[in-house]
Amino acid sequence: MNETKQQNILIIMKVTEKLAALRGLMREQGLSAYVVPGADPHASEYMAAHWMEMSWLSGFKGETGTVVVTMDKALLWTDSRYYLQADIELKDSTIGLMRESDIDCPTIAEWLIREGGSLVGLNPEMYSVNAFRALKEQLGEAGIGVHSVDLIKPLWTDDRPAIPQAPFYEYEVAYAGEDVASKLGRVREAMRQKGANAMVISALDEIAWLLNIRGKDVEYNPLVISYVVLEQDRCTLFVAPEKVPAAAHSQWGTLVATRGYDEVFDYIRQLQGTVLYDGARVNEALFEAIPAACRKVNAQSPILVMKARKNAVELKGERIAMREDAVALTRFFRWLEEEAFVDGQTQTECTLADKLHEFRTMGKHFTDESFGTIAGYKGNGAIVHYSAEPATCATVYPEGMLLLDSGGQYLDGTTDITRTVWLGGDIPAQAKRDYTYVLKGHIALQQVRFPRGTRGNQLDALAKQFMWAAGITYGHGTGHGVGHFLGCHEGPQNVRTDNNPTALEVGHVISDEPGIYRTGEWGIRTENLITVVPAPATEVATTNDQFLTFEPLTLCFYDTQLIDFSLMTADEIAWLNAYHARVLSEIAPLLSAEDAAFLAKKCKALITN
Amino acid sequence: MNETKQQNILIIMKVTEKLAALRGLMREQGLSAYVVPGADPHASEYMAAHWMEMSWLSGFKGETGTVVVTMDKALLWTDSRYYLQADIELKDSTIGLMRESDIDCPTIAEWLIREGGSLVGLNPEMYSVNAFRALKEQLGEAGIGVHSVDLIKPLWTDDRPAIPQAPFYEYEVAYAGEDVASKLGRVREAMRQKGANAMVISALDEIAWLLNIRGKDVEYNPLVISYVVLEQDRCTLFVAPEKVPAAAHSQWGTLVATRGYDEVFDYIRQLQGTVLYDGARVNEALFEAIPAACRKVNAQSPILVMKARKNAVELKGERIAMREDAVALTRFFRWLEEEAFVDGQTQTECTLADKLHEFRTMGKHFTDESFGTIAGYKGNGAIVHYSAEPATCATVYPEGMLLLDSGGQYLDGTTDITRTVWLGGDIPAQAKRDYTYVLKGHIALQQVRFPRGTRGNQLDALAKQFMWAAGITYGHGTGHGVGHFLGCHEGPQNVRTDNNPTALEVGHVISDEPGIYRTGEWGIRTENLITVVPAPATEVATTNDQFLTFEPLTLCFYDTQLIDFSLMTADEIAWLNAYHARVLSEIAPLLSAEDAAFLAKKCKALITN
Repeated sequence: MNETKQQNILIIMKVTEKLAALRGLMREQGLSAYVVPGADPHASEYMAAHWMEMSWLSGFKGETGTVVVTMDKALLWTDSRYYLQADIELKDSTIGLMRESDIDCPTIAEWLIREGGSLVGLNPEMYSVNAFRALKEQLGEAGIGVHSVDLIKPLWTDDRPAIPQAPFYEYEVAYAGEDVASKLGRVREAMRQKGANAMVISALDEIAWLLNIRGKDVEYNPLVISYVVLEQDRCTLFVAPEKVPAAAHSQWGTLVATRGYDEVFDYIRQLQGTVLYDGARVNEALFEAIPAACRKVNAQSPILVMKARKNAVELKGERIAMREDAVALTRFFRWLEEEAFVDGQTQTECTLADKLHEFRTMGKHFTDESFGTIAGYKGNGAIVHYSAEPATCATVYPEGMLLLDSGGQYLDGTTDITRTVWLGGDIPAQAKRDYTYVLKGHIALQQVRFPRGTRGNQLDALAKQFMWAAGITYGHGTGHGVGHFLGCHEGPQNVRTDNNPTALEVGHVISDEPGIYRTGEWGIRTENLITVVPAPATEVATTNDQFLTFEPLTLCFYDTQLIDFSLMTADEIAWLNAYHARVLSEIAPLLSAEDAAFLAKKCKALITN
Repeated sequence: MNETKQQNILIIMKVTEKLAALRGLMREQGLSAYVVPGADPHASEYMAAHWMEMSWLSGFKGETGTVVVTMDKALLWTDSRYYLQADIELKDSTIGLMRESDIDCPTIAEWLIREGGSLVGLNPEMYSVNAFRALKEQLGEAGIGVHSVDLIKPLWTDDRPAIPQAPFYEYEVAYAGEDVASKLGRVREAMRQKGANAMVISALDEIAWLLNIRGKDVEYNPLVISYVVLEQDRCTLFVAPEKVPAAAHSQWGTLVATRGYDEVFDYIRQLQGTVLYDGARVNEALFEAIPAACRKVNAQSPILVMKARKNAVELKGERIAMREDAVALTRFFRWLEEEAFVDGQTQTECTLADKLHEFRTMGKHFTDESFGTIAGYKGNGAIVHYSAEPATCATVYPEGMLLLDSGGQYLDGTTDITRTVWLGGDIPAQAKRDYTYVLKGHIALQQVRFPRGTRGNQLDALAKQFMWAAGITYGHGTGHGVGHFLGCHEGPQNVRTDNNPTALEVGHVISDEPGIYRTGEWGIRTENLITVVPAPATEVATTNDQFLTFEPLTLCFYDTQLIDFSLMTADEIAWLNAYHARVLSEIAPLLSAEDAAFLAKKCKALITN
């Protein structure tokens, strides 16, 4: 207890010291405000510790947050997931909390316009070009200037973790389905169509896809911290020399040259002609290095679009990964039902996550989880981005609702699945209704046929229509894009309410995960990964539109005891039966006799009423 | 026959003469190309003859088209609806046809970049600010200049129809529900919020709404050709003096001053401060008149947003208009079934439209049709914007499918309804399936509950999901906004695939009109007007979202003999029965005993299967 207290005091002293030192540098630079976002130079979802500047400065360890410092104030903006954590971690730090999910909370720009003075410092490496420019324009209209400067680097020195140095490795064509020469050729052709002789790339998943490399630099995503400048006649990977593997990359030959990670800026400074960059993903510091004489074209990265359309080998791999994942899930759910609670044992949200991890690690090609498992018991399931911690997680008994959202990174592909199960006791009628609204929407999205050119936001309501009729909705997206042994979240496609202009295309992989959340009671979410495929022929259509549909990739049974059958149509039951029959036929042969018997029980055909 | 031929020759000579004269003026101005769009200065859907410059120049009478003239070429861009008509009307005119619905047809900008030379002339009155700027920017990037000039005015003199001079009239508060003082106050407050002391308005429906006036200047829409400049301390209507009625406008007092129509430009030239304009609706000529010293704010017109949200009086009027319309429709359909074909009589698409018009004119507050009736018999119904002409329209027999899309302008409101009916003979199974897919989608949209903030494009798939499952879709919008005794089409809300950012709001009126079109066979469309209302309470919701739903405004039975009941759910049958019961209870009391008996037969409850 005393030890903990001392640590807290230590942290508190350091935060105030850091703020004082930062203000000293701000004074030297003539800055009235400085902003430290929780971001890295690669617009990463998961950051290396080296870039956790916001956490280092503030002591706040949440995943999302931005600190704004003026001469007399320091504030942290974060969303409602982290209010409680921030209250605790900011205590006595002199940093105030701005609750950005609250409707009356000013944006950082609005606040800076009110209280930020005349000149705001930003580290351009931590902002996308578009975000930097939008902020600069908004502040500029109010007469506030923006100065590009990194004030954390001179302050955070001795105890700053290094950028990870683990070597990357070649991702074989047997998994990638396309070699580097072919990818470079296609991207260069797309560049030519935009008149560009060079393209600057800082998004790590684009680099990993383009050069068929994978690494271990960050949690959950097999990425390699690096930059690429792609030109018509050469391709240069900027990466720490320690990270380049000893063995030659069999697909590279003379196609790819490597240089030091920090050399990218000088390299960009000597570019000529027309430079393509994706302002939504490339950081402002790289953009500022492009010579003024160059023509600059801000356009969606062609790699983003190509990467999203999985080729036949990638999809085949995805199906292999899904089977491996389904084996782990089946074994886990059998353990949960038959062993986890025997002899009065209890579990916790964390022991369940650990057990699932244990089953996944038995998979031949498993490398890592694709994100931190969300095991939400009862009311915790209603906290959408809940993250159980060993010290505080809930004890799980053989009763009530459990939401389990997890995924794996396999050499063959990336998985992400949510199942909500009932652990025991009487099921409230409302719980069944909620589960069934979610399931009906989940099925409706997977079943829909739609014309080519349809966007995800046109289909979002199909997953929500049944719960909407009951006056219920949810705030998160219905579906996100998923990478191939890359990020579990990737664009540009998704299924959300937002006005995303991207049409769904054959080979896209997305999640289908509607949910219902009752604060303090339960959270229900049901998620499959699905892929866009050409729709089978129907009667002669009246138009020339070609139709697409989805095919489930995930292969795991649903908890049918939670279904309110009075709400289900015969079509929906038929869909469930066909899905369960497919799960059984694909997965049972991979299981022990006992596990297969368990799965057969779970996949038993339901009688149409 | 000879007479017709001579007329054709006369027209042909004139077109070539006009082109020669235009090229003479182009040469004087140093223009390499001149563009004449089919548009007026008010972005009107229906134009006064005075502004039909494109038709005057080219001889092409279609509603949509743009003529581009260079020194050696003249081309007309129009869409597939008008290909046939253009081929005939452009014959020997030396004007070539650009089929803009064809996938390989260049846009006007693309063609001008290829062949348009160095300087393109545009009449800025005929372009919205946004359209003008987009074209100017695109041409500018290719090194082509744009010059604002009206070259038709000096050429089209003697035979040019005058701007309509009929007086406008006051639209009473008893119909409008809000007086001019209140509307001016609300719009001025919205202007203040954008820091504007003046706003320029050229859209006629906005002016009619703001000043509670209506007129007869164009077909179908009760609008008044005019401009308004609204300032914080005055409101000026620019309108031909002949059009100002003798009687004073009871709501105006000193709130509104009038000036001559053409004086608007000089008036704008003396504005100071910050000027608000809606670049999507205000024409470029007005914008160019705003002094350089003014701050200019391009933003969606606050009037557009206010006008779309109908107040209680407007909605009450809309319901009155709907009942009047339903009486006419019921009488028409009884005539069609019981009298139109007796003793071997036949009809034509035009006699049917005339008969419906005749019934509508018996309505107490009927003033005009709200658009040209579309009566499409059999295969003609599959031509989405079909317009029957007396000389060429189809003969209608008591057999097969008839699509009838029509509407009325009533002092109380505007109507727009489509019903598709079967006139006799055996109904093909496919016709029933098509009709039922359309009906199910039409019902699904009317039934949906959705959270506040939902946009129309999120709901569009609900109307299409059933036909999509059969591999069928349609290319037109599912729903357009409808004015209140104003334009039958109004924004900003709609239900379409497009990425329209407008959320649906209580008081919005939209159409719900899915369709299926089988070339050469039939067209099926079913359309009600519906309005957004708060959704009734349901079980306790899990979120703070408030839910909305739609309520049908249109009150006319559906042809139930076309329904394939095997495709209908019990919920859908229940919806139909409730709707028909409401139609009968609201309309029967307004009918003769015979008409009421006919309606009762049509509204008979269907047995749930």
